[in-house]
Amino acid sequence: MRIERLALLGIGLMGGSLARALRRAGAVGEIVGCARNTADLGTAVELGVIDRWTTDPAEAVAGADVVMVAVTLGATEQILAKAAPALEPDAVVTDVGSTKGSVVAAARRVLGPAIARFVGGHPIAGSERTGVEASFADLYVNHRVILTPLPENDLQAVAKVRAMWESCGAIVTEMDVAHHDEVLAATSHLPHMLAYALVDALVGMSTSGEIFDYAAGGFRDTTRIAASSPEMWRDIALANAPAVLAMCDRFEATFGAVRAAIAAGDGEALRTIFARAKAARERLPLRGPSR
Amino acid sequence: MRIERLALLGIGLMGGSLARALRRAGAVGEIVGCARNTADLGTAVELGVIDRWTTDPAEAVAGADVVMVAVTLGATEQILAKAAPALEPDAVVTDVGSTKGSVVAAARRVLGPAIARFVGGHPIAGSERTGVEASFADLYVNHRVILTPLPENDLQAVAKVRAMWESCGAIVTEMDVAHHDEVLAATSHLPHMLAYALVDALVGMSTSGEIFDYAAGGFRDTTRIAASSPEMWRDIALANAPAVLAMCDRFEATFGAVRAAIAAGDGEALRTIFARAKAARERLPLRGPSR
Repeated sequence: MRIERLALLGIGLMGGSLARALRRAGAVGEIVGCARNTADLGTAVELGVIDRWTTDPAEAVAGADVVMVAVTLGATEQILAKAAPALEPDAVVTDVGSTKGSVVAAARRVLGPAIARFVGGHPIAGSERTGVEASFADLYVNHRVILTPLPENDLQAVAKVRAMWESCGAIVTEMDVAHHDEVLAATSHLPHMLAYALVDALVGMSTSGEIFDYAAGGFRDTTRIAASSPEMWRDIALANAPAVLAMCDRFEATFGAVRAAIAAGDGEALRTIFARAKAARERLPLRGPSR
Repeated sequence: MRIERLALLGIGLMGGSLARALRRAGAVGEIVGCARNTADLGTAVELGVIDRWTTDPAEAVAGADVVMVAVTLGATEQILAKAAPALEPDAVVTDVGSTKGSVVAAARRVLGPAIARFVGGHPIAGSERTGVEASFADLYVNHRVILTPLPENDLQAVAKVRAMWESCGAIVTEMDVAHHDEVLAATSHLPHMLAYALVDALVGMSTSGEIFDYAAGGFRDTTRIAASSPEMWRDIALANAPAVLAMCDRFEATFGAVRAAIAAGDGEALRTIFARAKAARERLPLRGPSR
């Protein structure tokens, strides 16, 4: 697999790291960057992440055999719409969005028949840091990338996106779009909502200053992800709303059972729930994919 | 401050680490251990943690100037009741329980006038590991210990317990009993309930095996404390039920607001909550007390 020209729409941590990894693997010829912020684009050229740039998505995708959309979820449809008229007939289009149903719906709306070559992707990797300066070639090594092929997808397009990620050292798996969104709602989106809500519950207390002084290690771990980008998680929560709401309901039922057992003084019910959770938690692989 | 004879009722991680730290500081003469399991007691002698042992709490406290109760919350009242008749008239009694209202109530029930020398304590320190084999002299160094003196406490008793912890390298603060339980419900007890409930919500899903395969770093951090002892957390939740339930209510209100904003598609409400939580999370000291 070799990409002759990659159009990289969005040059942050995710896109920048992909570019670096592909270059290191010798898997890409030219990389054309596209973003709104020309200072970021200049930095990306200086860092050797991209070869040249434009602020026009249509210009960026002209002549590209692979188009990577690595912008925020909220900006995805607009940039796809701008790029669509200029796509090469055989260009493969993919993305790195954390939700897939909303991205696929946007792609269907704006790509027309080119949807056959749109292959949604979600690398389960990240970092606390953001921006092209934080990008690094190892970001995806041994991390999972979930592809969500569509029934109408060209099989060669799926194979090309898979090969691209494998050349970056990632472990590629495939999932149905709706199933991806359900799995991620459970393992990532709900935990973020809980962490934000937990911290915000404490912020509202009159003694919150003192309370945060006594926050112990368990609290720090549980709420680490509450330091994530509010804009990114707003977009994810809204983009995957049905699956996230279903998980909220499921969580509220379990939490309600814990609460009821405490209120009733039912120690055996509490011990049963806690022991079941502990056993499941201990079955997690010792090191999983980050983020 | 020097303890002539310490009666250590319970010889697990907490009690064992206190014994090691006091010995290292040259702050204790003899240490008499008491537990139900004679094998553990033998191990504690072999490790040099205690000098001699008995399985009888009354025998253990005879001649002791300081009595440390380091058993589980559920066993505290019974062991105090057994020890009470044999306490020396000037013996200082303290504990390491994670909740203080329930311990103080138990102490009031069984100690009689000796309540004047009962000073509740809670070291904010711990480890994933348990048992005397896991104990180590540095456990409390630079960790907070919260003392909850009572209005009827002898000031010399409070000073002695404070000096004991300071000789172990701990940072001692004092709090009202009810306030301690409220602060800990917020920063420790509620996060544990959430972590257990989150994992248990996922356990019940038909695809839970696959879901745990995709659990990312955020999920792992958020749920680490769900691997804690079910029996210990059952005891804590029940012992501090009023404060824990109040925090559950507070959390459910915030989480309900997040859920309602997602359902309504209200991105600005979500962004506001997430940004407020992120700002509060980032104000946490970089390294806080563990557990």
